[in-house]
Amino acid sequence: MRDTARQIIRINDPHDPRIAEFRDIRERDLVGRHGQFIAEGTVVLRMLAAAHVSAKARFRAETLLLLENRLEGLGEILAAFPAEVPVYVASAAVLDQIAGFHLHRGVLALGSRMLEQGADALLNALPEKALVGVCCGISNHDNIGSIFRNAAAFGVSALLLDETCCDPLYRKALRVSVGSVLSVPFARGGAALSLLETVDRAGFAIFGLSPRGEIDIRNVPKGNRVALVTGTEGEGLPAHIMERFQTARIPQMPQLDSLNAATATGIALYEMARGQDLLG
Amino acid sequence: MRDTARQIIRINDPHDPRIAEFRDIRERDLVGRHGQFIAEGTVVLRMLAAAHVSAKARFRAETLLLLENRLEGLGEILAAFPAEVPVYVASAAVLDQIAGFHLHRGVLALGSRMLEQGADALLNALPEKALVGVCCGISNHDNIGSIFRNAAAFGVSALLLDETCCDPLYRKALRVSVGSVLSVPFARGGAALSLLETVDRAGFAIFGLSPRGEIDIRNVPKGNRVALVTGTEGEGLPAHIMERFQTARIPQMPQLDSLNAATATGIALYEMARGQDLLG
Repeated sequence: MRDTARQIIRINDPHDPRIAEFRDIRERDLVGRHGQFIAEGTVVLRMLAAAHVSAKARFRAETLLLLENRLEGLGEILAAFPAEVPVYVASAAVLDQIAGFHLHRGVLALGSRMLEQGADALLNALPEKALVGVCCGISNHDNIGSIFRNAAAFGVSALLLDETCCDPLYRKALRVSVGSVLSVPFARGGAALSLLETVDRAGFAIFGLSPRGEIDIRNVPKGNRVALVTGTEGEGLPAHIMERFQTARIPQMPQLDSLNAATATGIALYEMARGQDLLG
Repeated sequence: MRDTARQIIRINDPHDPRIAEFRDIRERDLVGRHGQFIAEGTVVLRMLAAAHVSAKARFRAETLLLLENRLEGLGEILAAFPAEVPVYVASAAVLDQIAGFHLHRGVLALGSRMLEQGADALLNALPEKALVGVCCGISNHDNIGSIFRNAAAFGVSALLLDETCCDPLYRKALRVSVGSVLSVPFARGGAALSLLETVDRAGFAIFGLSPRGEIDIRNVPKGNRVALVTGTEGEGLPAHIMERFQTARIPQMPQLDSLNAATATGIALYEMARGQDLLG
């Protein structure tokens, strides 16, 4: 399976310009990269390879940077990338100097977003039968990553993130999503209400998720196009969204702090996917 | 509501012996405290107060240590603790020196476990109708904390943790659980199989959760006593457990990495709680 045509380039100097994009990645995470992102770990790397060679080509790998002793075990994944993607290797000492902290996984890739669709275009491209998730104000990278992972598990066609959500291509969100950010189509931007009006115009029945929702999540009517809206964990959805759209609740014990936002979204998507017969 | 009888003691020296148990808490987390634990943040503090004054008295607060400027806002929670629980306050500089890192929440308590029941005693004390969760090898503090939070949301009567699970009273697990570790009764210890035999003898129908489970989780037969068994995220439940007991699956899209262990446990407990009519 090993790709013999590929050249493996050894990096000895942490200041080598060829791996400049991997330098001090923790600090760079905070500023945003304008369409570039860092993928970390073998699971995410495998998803990046799949995205790179897919016909949709929404993402591509620019460069790989690996700990030298990981090379042997990654043969199959590396073979999935075209030979023109450069693969750099470094010792643990050099790699830690590049990254700016101890990188025990030893597997990094620089990726680029090739295609950025708006919510309108994304929704128009969906099949007639589709389940969509809309996130409003999910600013925690763990939660946004988990929501992508849950969306992938339950066959969600697309996720729409309002302008107050964090970037799912941030390194930690990507890792928590086990790479699902690269497989579940998404759009990010716009105010929550105007985003939901776009979803409404695309023919989706919209349900806001809230512990005070009107109907039991299991009783969401079957329909071809259904959308779930999730708000922040503390505050939930804003009043003007709750008033404008239908709302649904997950039955649970009354208590101070209900479910985590990502878990609640997971359960709701699970119920809605079952209702739409999306699952086996 | 403010408890005027309570004395607030100011700490100026980070080496003051009265707050020795809060010193370098990050390092101490790693070694275990033999029944003592650190509760962090207002939500967990509120749960500790509720546990302290409950008739069951499984946990008690020993000492509180607060950032001086948090005192004003915590009046109601402090009033919930008996006056004999000492409340220490410190400046941000002193508090950070005590803790060994920057403690932006500024709310700590030292708690003790008063009653440690084995699985046998815990199961015998349960009502005739009960849903129980059994965790095998959940060694990640985020996951164990999330499982407690989900268990509380869905009315689980008890959680049983085998000897390879991590300690849910560890500071981070307690925080992720939003204090549910102090409200959901649990026992920890023993090998998975002998623990499950105990559950079996207590009259529980046992279902192991697995993507390859025999029945759809929604079709778990109704019964008074039902137990869900969750294994580790990567490996899942060991073969000897899967063979010995019934198994159930959460329908989902086929893919490399399925649901997170805590999310899967949450969905399964949700379904089983609905099946037992535990929820509203």
